[in-house]
Amino acid sequence: MDIKILEQLLEEVRLGRVPVAAALERLRVLPFENLGFARVDHHRQLRQGFPEVIFAAGKTISQIRAIITALHPNNENILVTRLAPEKAESLLPEFPEARYHPDSRVLTICRGEIPNRGRGVIVVISAGTSDIPVAEEALLTAQIMGHQVEALYDVGVAGLHRLLAHQELLTRASCFIVVAGMDGALPSVVGGLVDRPVIAVPTSVGYGASFGGLAALLTMLNSCATGVAVMNIDNGFGAGYLAALINRKD
Amino acid sequence: MDIKILEQLLEEVRLGRVPVAAALERLRVLPFENLGFARVDHHRQLRQGFPEVIFAAGKTISQIRAIITALHPNNENILVTRLAPEKAESLLPEFPEARYHPDSRVLTICRGEIPNRGRGVIVVISAGTSDIPVAEEALLTAQIMGHQVEALYDVGVAGLHRLLAHQELLTRASCFIVVAGMDGALPSVVGGLVDRPVIAVPTSVGYGASFGGLAALLTMLNSCATGVAVMNIDNGFGAGYLAALINRKD
Amino acid sequence: MDIKILEQLLEEVRLGRVPVAAALERLRVLPFENLGFARVDHHRQLRQGFPEVIFAAGKTISQIRAIITALHPNNENILVTRLAPEKAESLLPEFPEARYHPDSRVLTICRGEIPNRGRGVIVVISAGTSDIPVAEEALLTAQIMGHQVEALYDVGVAGLHRLLAHQELLTRASCFIVVAGMDGALPSVVGGLVDRPVIAVPTSVGYGASFGGLAALLTMLNSCATGVAVMNIDNGFGAGYLAALINRKD
Amino acid sequence: MDIKILEQLLEEVRLGRVPVAAALERLRVLPFENLGFARVDHHRQLRQGFPEVIFAAGKTISQIRAIITALHPNNENILVTRLAPEKAESLLPEFPEARYHPDSRVLTICRGEIPNRGRGVIVVISAGTSDIPVAEEALLTAQIMGHQVEALYDVGVAGLHRLLAHQELLTRASCFIVVAGMDGALPSVVGGLVDRPVIAVPTSVGYGASFGGLAALLTMLNSCATGVAVMNIDNGFGAGYLAALINRKD
Amino acid sequence: MDIKILEQLLEEVRLGRVPVAAALERLRVLPFENLGFARVDHHRQLRQGFPEVIFAAGKTISQIRAIITALHPNNENILVTRLAPEKAESLLPEFPEARYHPDSRVLTICRGEIPNRGRGVIVVISAGTSDIPVAEEALLTAQIMGHQVEALYDVGVAGLHRLLAHQELLTRASCFIVVAGMDGALPSVVGGLVDRPVIAVPTSVGYGASFGGLAALLTMLNSCATGVAVMNIDNGFGAGYLAALINRKD
Amino acid sequence: MDIKILEQLLEEVRLGRVPVAAALERLRVLPFENLGFARVDHHRQLRQGFPEVIFAAGKTISQIRAIITALHPNNENILVTRLAPEKAESLLPEFPEARYHPDSRVLTICRGEIPNRGRGVIVVISAGTSDIPVAEEALLTAQIMGHQVEALYDVGVAGLHRLLAHQELLTRASCFIVVAGMDGALPSVVGGLVDRPVIAVPTSVGYGASFGGLAALLTMLNSCATGVAVMNIDNGFGAGYLAALINRKD
Amino acid sequence: MDIKILEQLLEEVRLGRVPVAAALERLRVLPFENLGFARVDHHRQLRQGFPEVIFAAGKTISQIRAIITALHPNNENILVTRLAPEKAESLLPEFPEARYHPDSRVLTICRGEIPNRGRGVIVVISAGTSDIPVAEEALLTAQIMGHQVEALYDVGVAGLHRLLAHQELLTRASCFIVVAGMDGALPSVVGGLVDRPVIAVPTSVGYGASFGGLAALLTMLNSCATGVAVMNIDNGFGAGYLAALINRKD
Amino acid sequence: MDIKILEQLLEEVRLGRVPVAAALERLRVLPFENLGFARVDHHRQLRQGFPEVIFAAGKTISQIRAIITALHPNNENILVTRLAPEKAESLLPEFPEARYHPDSRVLTICRGEIPNRGRGVIVVISAGTSDIPVAEEALLTAQIMGHQVEALYDVGVAGLHRLLAHQELLTRASCFIVVAGMDGALPSVVGGLVDRPVIAVPTSVGYGASFGGLAALLTMLNSCATGVAVMNIDNGFGAGYLAALINRKD
Repeated sequence: MDIKILEQLLEEVRLGRVPVAAALERLRVLPFENLGFARVDHHRQLRQGFPEVIFAAGKTISQIRAIITALHPNNENILVTRLAPEKAESLLPEFPEARYHPDSRVLTICRGEIPNRGRGVIVVISAGTSDIPVAEEALLTAQIMGHQVEALYDVGVAGLHRLLAHQELLTRASCFIVVAGMDGALPSVVGGLVDRPVIAVPTSVGYGASFGGLAALLTMLNSCATGVAVMNIDNGFGAGYLAALINRKD
Repeated sequence: MDIKILEQLLEEVRLGRVPVAAALERLRVLPFENLGFARVDHHRQLRQGFPEVIFAAGKTISQIRAIITALHPNNENILVTRLAPEKAESLLPEFPEARYHPDSRVLTICRGEIPNRGRGVIVVISAGTSDIPVAEEALLTAQIMGHQVEALYDVGVAGLHRLLAHQELLTRASCFIVVAGMDGALPSVVGGLVDRPVIAVPTSVGYGASFGGLAALLTMLNSCATGVAVMNIDNGFGAGYLAALINRKD
Repeated sequence: MDIKILEQLLEEVRLGRVPVAAALERLRVLPFENLGFARVDHHRQLRQGFPEVIFAAGKTISQIRAIITALHPNNENILVTRLAPEKAESLLPEFPEARYHPDSRVLTICRGEIPNRGRGVIVVISAGTSDIPVAEEALLTAQIMGHQVEALYDVGVAGLHRLLAHQELLTRASCFIVVAGMDGALPSVVGGLVDRPVIAVPTSVGYGASFGGLAALLTMLNSCATGVAVMNIDNGFGAGYLAALINRKD
Repeated sequence: MDIKILEQLLEEVRLGRVPVAAALERLRVLPFENLGFARVDHHRQLRQGFPEVIFAAGKTISQIRAIITALHPNNENILVTRLAPEKAESLLPEFPEARYHPDSRVLTICRGEIPNRGRGVIVVISAGTSDIPVAEEALLTAQIMGHQVEALYDVGVAGLHRLLAHQELLTRASCFIVVAGMDGALPSVVGGLVDRPVIAVPTSVGYGASFGGLAALLTMLNSCATGVAVMNIDNGFGAGYLAALINRKD
Repeated sequence: MDIKILEQLLEEVRLGRVPVAAALERLRVLPFENLGFARVDHHRQLRQGFPEVIFAAGKTISQIRAIITALHPNNENILVTRLAPEKAESLLPEFPEARYHPDSRVLTICRGEIPNRGRGVIVVISAGTSDIPVAEEALLTAQIMGHQVEALYDVGVAGLHRLLAHQELLTRASCFIVVAGMDGALPSVVGGLVDRPVIAVPTSVGYGASFGGLAALLTMLNSCATGVAVMNIDNGFGAGYLAALINRKD
Repeated sequence: MDIKILEQLLEEVRLGRVPVAAALERLRVLPFENLGFARVDHHRQLRQGFPEVIFAAGKTISQIRAIITALHPNNENILVTRLAPEKAESLLPEFPEARYHPDSRVLTICRGEIPNRGRGVIVVISAGTSDIPVAEEALLTAQIMGHQVEALYDVGVAGLHRLLAHQELLTRASCFIVVAGMDGALPSVVGGLVDRPVIAVPTSVGYGASFGGLAALLTMLNSCATGVAVMNIDNGFGAGYLAALINRKD
Repeated sequence: MDIKILEQLLEEVRLGRVPVAAALERLRVLPFENLGFARVDHHRQLRQGFPEVIFAAGKTISQIRAIITALHPNNENILVTRLAPEKAESLLPEFPEARYHPDSRVLTICRGEIPNRGRGVIVVISAGTSDIPVAEEALLTAQIMGHQVEALYDVGVAGLHRLLAHQELLTRASCFIVVAGMDGALPSVVGGLVDRPVIAVPTSVGYGASFGGLAALLTMLNSCATGVAVMNIDNGFGAGYLAALINRKD
Repeated sequence: MDIKILEQLLEEVRLGRVPVAAALERLRVLPFENLGFARVDHHRQLRQGFPEVIFAAGKTISQIRAIITALHPNNENILVTRLAPEKAESLLPEFPEARYHPDSRVLTICRGEIPNRGRGVIVVISAGTSDIPVAEEALLTAQIMGHQVEALYDVGVAGLHRLLAHQELLTRASCFIVVAGMDGALPSVVGGLVDRPVIAVPTSVGYGASFGGLAALLTMLNSCATGVAVMNIDNGFGAGYLAALINRKD
């Protein structure tokens, strides 16, 4: 029930067609979102360029297919994350607009042009090549939400000159996503060089005392640079989504 | 560009084949610190409304006094965080513009009006009353950076109606700081209600299995709501600073 | 030796057939349970509607078959938890009353009607769809113990309106089981809305800093709502069992 | 705004006194709790015998005094937990009905008789003498909520006969609170002996590898007995509150 | 009720003075320990040379005094562990046989000669001088239980020759207690040199990544030498007690 | 160089055949073990009934075969632990005296009768059936070292009467090995019932917050019973070995 | 130096007042990457004997082949670490100089003789046979960097005489790499015997409370011997590289 | 017994004054160090410039005084670490050569000139001002061992230009000590810029998720730069000592 239906209900009360008691009853059990308060999930996309997101890990091919199909009529953009290649292979023939990105294990379905909704460019930086899958997940998420994104990969702190060589891009961006595993030191360095929000994403890349990304996570939480906030380990999608929220025009 | 090319460039300058301005331009993108690239700390404040920040924990009164005095001539706004009351008491008589906020243990020194540099309002939300000191640190930080901030305290998830009663404010803000200890569940709830960036700050409030804020930290990192990023435990200052970066007009 | 045998022994003492010293010796090594003190496992089910429970993880098919067969003559209800599908497939043809629930990997064998032993309805709530297997294990456990259970799935805090839409059910229940992974925030929210016992079950659903359910576990232990107690990670069976104890008529 | 006001608003719409657009606007910002959904905190006590609870840790004497005074007119029962002795000393002369329990650092203010609201007796068991403060906090909480409580202290598993000697009490209770530090093994033993809900409370009693109660907490979460749920470390209040919810007549 | 009373009961059954049903009833609620099964605490000392042990941490002076006084009439040996010096100072004048050991914070009260109950000599080894208090607690515990103990202190692995110089003692002992903080490596080295049980006691000596003794504890649990078992951090008393059990003649 | 060679060297010094300086030089580099100090590994078995132990985890079949073959001529008893069934299958035909124990994954090769080297009986107790493999590893280790062992399995604290029914065995043993996963509470209970050394072995049996045996490990380290020492998780071999050291006649 | 000064310098070059060589010298200390300051990766090898290192874990065969091929023309020595056997098998036929070391999963490609760049011998010590793969990775790394290395394997602290027998080697080395899993005690012992830098490498060898090498790591960090520094768990390559830096002539 | 005494013993054997058997007996129990194998502690300083080191934490003033006095006659250099100011105040008047460094809480006693024993300069780098005490402890340790040290403080990664401005020093050093708390990222950056050994020292500087230095420790262990090894948290002394070993001429 959306605001129109509510308006109609009140109109019918006004016209005496629906008694007050009956209206009251309907309002009481009125699903919460209908009052316009809560973010109405199925309207979100149309108004704001938010795609529908499907977290595919642990879902079967047929579950994923069903969800995509259900969303289809609305002509929405769809982002499927953590989709294993073999599942992607099954799904691709069925959805012609679908495109699979094997590095990041992301599948995107875009209908029509995505209008630019950003104020500036989002820069996604990765420390090592092994961090690229997570970085790409972030990049694709921000892109499908209508943002311009540039990538700067493999510029970890052990070879600082690689990062410093991109000075121009660093000053031009409106928001940064910095993805790093192992020592997770890169967001601190980037945060010290720029005056824009830095979204730090630790990855599970590493071994031994990296403890599945815990080391990088702690590093980032303790960043001595200001302006750095942290996502869960390997949460590229979340970083891309947040960057889009930060960068969006309103 | 290697040393040969640099030599050649200088040679061409010497021969008048490359004008100084053009050479300068090529050199500009070279060295880091020397060319004004790196954020020059003492210029930052003037251009962007960034205050000087002094982390007082572990500094003696005389060290703090010395730093404030050194900054004084530049007429800068100063933010002193984690300042114990007894230290504040010593410093206040010496700096007439200083104001001490005992709850958050923050001392601010503002010279003249702080111009509004924000695009919208930042809302600082705290779960419990014990979380207020951290929330206030965030609030004061954002304010001294030139942002409008509103506070919504003691609206933890155990009494959800308290939060939901402020629906209007939730839809109006451009950025949220959500401060919570114990179970740290509030950022997830707020993140599910709004479409704006949420900066989650775990606090060390709690006992037993809160492990000094670890429980709240992990909760927030695993938030099932999108658009939530996390700061270090009790890092109100960092949250206020990041919110100011997100909210600033440019 | 049961109470009858003890009675007989005393009788023989009385009749002088067994000397005091010999009786004394026999009483000294008298097995504990025979005095009627300890809960006699094989009588429990008959009196109280407790099923026999088989934890199948790590047991071979033939071990499980043997246990079921041994219990058969007593016509007891049997609950097999953590039973892999391939094992279930082997067992189902042999036990006609058996029913396998693939989501929760639970096998139930019920002989005859299960009488209602509850005072009210137990509501099982899950935060996400991935938490449903654990929730179902709880639900099936409580059902086979003779309790009425209703399920409310996929109502996590990131979309609070989904939970709030079920207000009527929330006020009607006598006990809640709340199952959540990732941030584990749902029990705090439910605990704040209701005045009934809430059994919180963290799940291992999540990735990165969820650390196999540790994040959700700590969240729940630190719940700022009152009336919430916590089970081990993924322990749906335990939650269903405890809910049945709480809800039972006596 | 309560349901009456909503009815009135609809009535005025019906009568044409309030236009549909204006009504719509009012409904949009309708405070949530006014619809009667959320638990109204200040009514709770009167209906259900719930006391007002003040968590005194970190609150100043004047803050605590202010809260007590504010609650006074309602003649409510008040429970103040984690109140340091020196604070209690200040408060006692001002509130004649107040009684301080130094062991558990609990202060209770009871006006008039507390009616019995329980179905049976709650038994509070502690493993060691050092666990008694937490046990007492649980006991006093349940008592002020109108429940009959019996204590069984210093019956840890290292001297099992002390527990087993109280067999009669074990079979008589309707709910158990078991408080233990160090190895935290007692709830498993009690859970194996009884058929009633067991609320396990780990305490921070211990040293070395007890890690502030973590050892006992993990023991209890992994209890091999059924029917055991766990509270946060040292959370006697929470256990008493939950036991009262479980035990209450309705 | 002790064995005598049980005998008497049976006698009365035999004589027909107590009917079988009544005897049955009394036996049903017979306190457990009375059947002679459980270790009767107050008889233990007399038979086996076990002292009464008072863990003084967290007990007030008057509580400790009361316990000592209660034990006095039995003329038992008493061991008070973790007794702060200021408490010891209060107690010493009242108990003339008491002797306080400030290093280990142990107070011993011995009445008469302690007979030798050991099969051989127990050797207590400490890695550093800071580990001596824990080592001494172990030593004094074993001594008061009637065992011959020799100490070998400050022979940590960083100066291996200090240990190796005592070869003769190493071959002569019947049981070892090895106390070490920091890296906790000493028990592995001792365990590799001897063919006797080694009781390893980690201490909280260290800083940084010693994490309060956790590092030493893990080292010892992972000892690559055979014949090594581990106590809780700083648990000198427990080690001394166990060594006495291992070494005792029977 | 053994003691004979040293004697010879001194003899030659005495006779003036070797100058003091040369002797000095040879003594300086004298291999340590030759002085008879260090435990000479290949003599150990003959003197004391210690078997050769091969930790098979991570070794190939051919490596294991080679080691067994090398030991063969000495006619020693051999214990192979953590041997996967498929490896055992390959090895069994080659060594006729070999016997494989699939539960504990132990292979034993015994030549001739193993003489009894123990003072009493070692009792191995397991809490659950899943703990039996670790318990069996302990049992077989102690047996091959010449000790009499009795097993008491599946007597966990959740059904205490099962343990208490074996009172006679508990009083008869000279040393206990108690194996438990999940809550790891059993050693505390056994330790409270007996006056003999208890070797506690945590197992990795469990799930969720058992954290691979960490919960049981911490429980045992914090045991409130005296006389309990702890082995590494799943270290049945180590427990059996230590029990044999404790129990051996000398 | 700021932009003005740079402009002036160029102006003076243009005017012929500052010769190009002098300007070059001044500029040399300016920009980081461009002026040859930063370690230029592709020059490093030629000057200092550093090999190109490829961390093969997570790279596909074709990625590895491409990198090797790209490096080929420079005739550089190449070290591929963590290369799975099946990948090695594919690569070996294509690169005739390649040699695969299956134990350490290292592939080396050496063109021509590696000149000796060390001041002394590096000794690589391993505690157990299972630690050898990590030790070998260290050994091969140091060798390909031009250093003489000697190995001393399987000399763990449980059989100390095995280490002590190699006294001569211990006094001769200029740097030590000590590799150990389980209790990780060996570096402390070696550190106590020698006066040279000891690089400690914990391995993930062990089970239970070794927690994947955490126990050994903590042991080494807390080493009571001086001169010991620690690498990440299983980081043999890093240790070999650092040893080469320490040992190199300059 | 030193080498002289051994020589004398052999001499006496040669002269027939001591029979072979008696000599044999004396040699058997010959303290290990006397054979010249083990590093003889009291000779070390004279030969190699190693000072005597006293770890003052936990030692009383009189204990420290006694040790210093005992060392005095040998005219050795003495380094006292972790000495509280109040203890220093007591000791200073008694030892005229003593000098106290309050920042690092180090007391040094140097007799005469310390000869230069280093091959190059050791550079000590600290990230923040709060890390300076640990850095100074390292610096003073290396200095008293005869090494030239230069300090570069407050050059953390959040202001990278501060570090890069010291390029010349970075290329000149022979060994680095890098001290950092919070995110601990500096050693990775330094390690990426230099080709010399980097000794990384995490400090306990930080709050919240720094967990007492654990975050910085893990960062450093996972450094993506090569040539970095790690010390225990706050172990400045150890780093200075190791740097001296690395840098020493031989």
